[in-house]
Amino acid sequence: MNNINIGIIGFGTVGAGVVTILEKNKEIIQDRVGAPVVVRRIADLDTVSDRGITLQPSILTNDARAIINDPEISIVVELIGGEEPAATYLRQAVAQGKHVVTANKALLSRRGEEFFQAAHERGVNIGFEGSVGGGIPIIQAIRDGLSANRITMIFGILNGTSNFILSCMSDGVKDFSEALAEAQRLGYAEADPTLDVSGYDTTHKLSILLSLVYGRQFHPEEIYTEGIARITPQDISFAKELGYRIKLLAISKDDRGEIEVRVTPTLVPAASLISNVQGVYNAVFVTGDAVGSTLFYGRGAGKMPTGSAVVSDIIRIARALHTNPEKPIIPFGSRRPRPVTIKKENQIRSRYYLRFSATDRPGVLSQIAGILGDYDISISSVIQRGRSSEGAVPIFMLIHEALEQNVNAAMKKIDELPVTLDRTMLIRIEDTFDVLDC
Amino acid sequence: MNNINIGIIGFGTVGAGVVTILEKNKEIIQDRVGAPVVVRRIADLDTVSDRGITLQPSILTNDARAIINDPEISIVVELIGGEEPAATYLRQAVAQGKHVVTANKALLSRRGEEFFQAAHERGVNIGFEGSVGGGIPIIQAIRDGLSANRITMIFGILNGTSNFILSCMSDGVKDFSEALAEAQRLGYAEADPTLDVSGYDTTHKLSILLSLVYGRQFHPEEIYTEGIARITPQDISFAKELGYRIKLLAISKDDRGEIEVRVTPTLVPAASLISNVQGVYNAVFVTGDAVGSTLFYGRGAGKMPTGSAVVSDIIRIARALHTNPEKPIIPFGSRRPRPVTIKKENQIRSRYYLRFSATDRPGVLSQIAGILGDYDISISSVIQRGRSSEGAVPIFMLIHEALEQNVNAAMKKIDELPVTLDRTMLIRIEDTFDVLDC
Repeated sequence: MNNINIGIIGFGTVGAGVVTILEKNKEIIQDRVGAPVVVRRIADLDTVSDRGITLQPSILTNDARAIINDPEISIVVELIGGEEPAATYLRQAVAQGKHVVTANKALLSRRGEEFFQAAHERGVNIGFEGSVGGGIPIIQAIRDGLSANRITMIFGILNGTSNFILSCMSDGVKDFSEALAEAQRLGYAEADPTLDVSGYDTTHKLSILLSLVYGRQFHPEEIYTEGIARITPQDISFAKELGYRIKLLAISKDDRGEIEVRVTPTLVPAASLISNVQGVYNAVFVTGDAVGSTLFYGRGAGKMPTGSAVVSDIIRIARALHTNPEKPIIPFGSRRPRPVTIKKENQIRSRYYLRFSATDRPGVLSQIAGILGDYDISISSVIQRGRSSEGAVPIFMLIHEALEQNVNAAMKKIDELPVTLDRTMLIRIEDTFDVLDC
Repeated sequence: MNNINIGIIGFGTVGAGVVTILEKNKEIIQDRVGAPVVVRRIADLDTVSDRGITLQPSILTNDARAIINDPEISIVVELIGGEEPAATYLRQAVAQGKHVVTANKALLSRRGEEFFQAAHERGVNIGFEGSVGGGIPIIQAIRDGLSANRITMIFGILNGTSNFILSCMSDGVKDFSEALAEAQRLGYAEADPTLDVSGYDTTHKLSILLSLVYGRQFHPEEIYTEGIARITPQDISFAKELGYRIKLLAISKDDRGEIEVRVTPTLVPAASLISNVQGVYNAVFVTGDAVGSTLFYGRGAGKMPTGSAVVSDIIRIARALHTNPEKPIIPFGSRRPRPVTIKKENQIRSRYYLRFSATDRPGVLSQIAGILGDYDISISSVIQRGRSSEGAVPIFMLIHEALEQNVNAAMKKIDELPVTLDRTMLIRIEDTFDVLDC
């Protein structure tokens, strides 16, 4: 089995994420590609700092050309960001016939067309899933998953720093500069936050999404852009009174070929899904003429989420390089099933909501509670209220985490009690979901 | 340019959606594929009913074999649903070397492995994006967009009928049977709603998602399933008091190779994103070890949304058939840019939120209102409150839809007033977002 060799230019946060994922999920990735994906060289000016990753010393170099000119490397991953020298490296890599993967939104938004044209002429692919929305596979969704549609609207929360600051501000009485300081303290904002809070980072990303939809470059300068620095806690609380939240949105609305495009703070209805995207999360709301409204949500930045997007591009290109084009890839994702067993009720623990239906008589609750206690089930809250005309009274209860087997056994006992008038209703509780504030 | 010919078996709701999309977005689709996609034959037992689509009469047939045996057809689209005769047609199509696209979740959840194995041996592809989550490209997201990840959790709202009923019930005092009747009246529930409200439709879809993650068949019988018929308005209102909503969830939680899988009504925190998925919408919450939490949201059923998913499969397979595998597809989606112009401020209308900063003196509001009136801008609400120590008082205002050019001109005038102490804050309002109840 021939290895697919890749070279990485730029060993910062995202570069370290990519290397970590390729190592940690090596088997899954080999399985999906059909061949091992091997990091052959990594170029960075800093070859000394500890990134928490063990590498053979020969892998690290401070010369990007050692990657670009290596005939064994078929995929070059550019993760240094900014216009130069990234543009030069990308151009040279394409000229050498390398496939390239990049997360460089500033470069693509200004010079994407040039690179895509060069790649097309040279017959190589450019992956750029990491350039918009971090780990959210939004590039693929627009290019491929929604390919049957004429895309009519895009609304995006595309900058986690700004969304975190706005979430913070609507959470309490924090003003912009306090919320920014909090974002910096938590590592969600850079020391110089200009690109984020001015809206221009969002504009770069909108430009890339527009290029996908319309097939031509949209220069950031064509897109009207406003940032969030002038928003006050008063604006947020007045908006709230009126049923709105304030979000920094990238907007494109197509009116039969005439589009309204802008990046501005925007009041959105508090009850809408997009207004509930909190903290550093990103979301893209896309409307297509066939599919209607869709929303894609996830972490918009960071080592592992952006690494996830970059590695998905590497896998896609590596798979195309490896697979005999006559033979489609095996469906159901995997060449070998992942070993897995389904848990039984004696292995599952959960919190539960219970509704008992019992006769309205003294001592009923104590009988129920007694049985629960016998099965090691402890009550977290209980409400018994009102009387029903039929003599049945509902008792509502939440219980702490308990073994499903015990809960089922206790319910069986309780349902057999003479005072029980109907089968007990049992609903599981899932607390796994993030409830994000700021 | 050689046409890519397809044959469709089953001309019901989704079949009509697929034909409508292929006709309506013909140019976009040809552009993405690189060749025209032509519907050559459609087979249905009913060749008489009017589907609102004009077809050459020779296209319609009641003999599925006329499609399966047609050497000119390279993609067979199966949209009849159910196990037989769909299974026979799919098997025969694969044996004839056709690529197939299907939205048949019942069939795939029971016999997917058999079909994928046959397709692999014959070297053809099976597209099945339409089988889960309607128009949401969730199959692609798990197989490809999140391919760098070990998927650790899936939570899905995968049945629009059940979600509509639960949304209705939490909206008012409707009980299950009233909410079901409402769903039936609106066409969101079938005359026999058993498959939907019992949870088994959700189980079929979870089974397919699990197969993608673990690479083996999960029979629906392996998945513990409960429906929503026993949930009462009391359950919903008690849950609400405790900060929860009730959703019918498909759940898979991976604990190092031991998975908890089930389809049950579940209490989820009211403040979580998934609890805000209302009405007939679907959503899938996927956690990967690298990407973290993601959510994919959209219409889970219906003619056009499911049609969108089916056509995206057709485009993907057609593109692979047409493209010279040596030459990658042109990035930025399109071979020809779509004609588009960016609107100017004299073409854009919006509602706005305004915050004026003025001296605390009589007559200020009337000066501001006068200028707004001059520019044809009408006020929908205004609040002026409290006094500031610096003598500046904020005035908050919402205005009705107005021309951006006029708003900008009025702001300039207002900012030049002697009573104005700071630049007026102006934030656009977007009311486009669905705020769904039931």
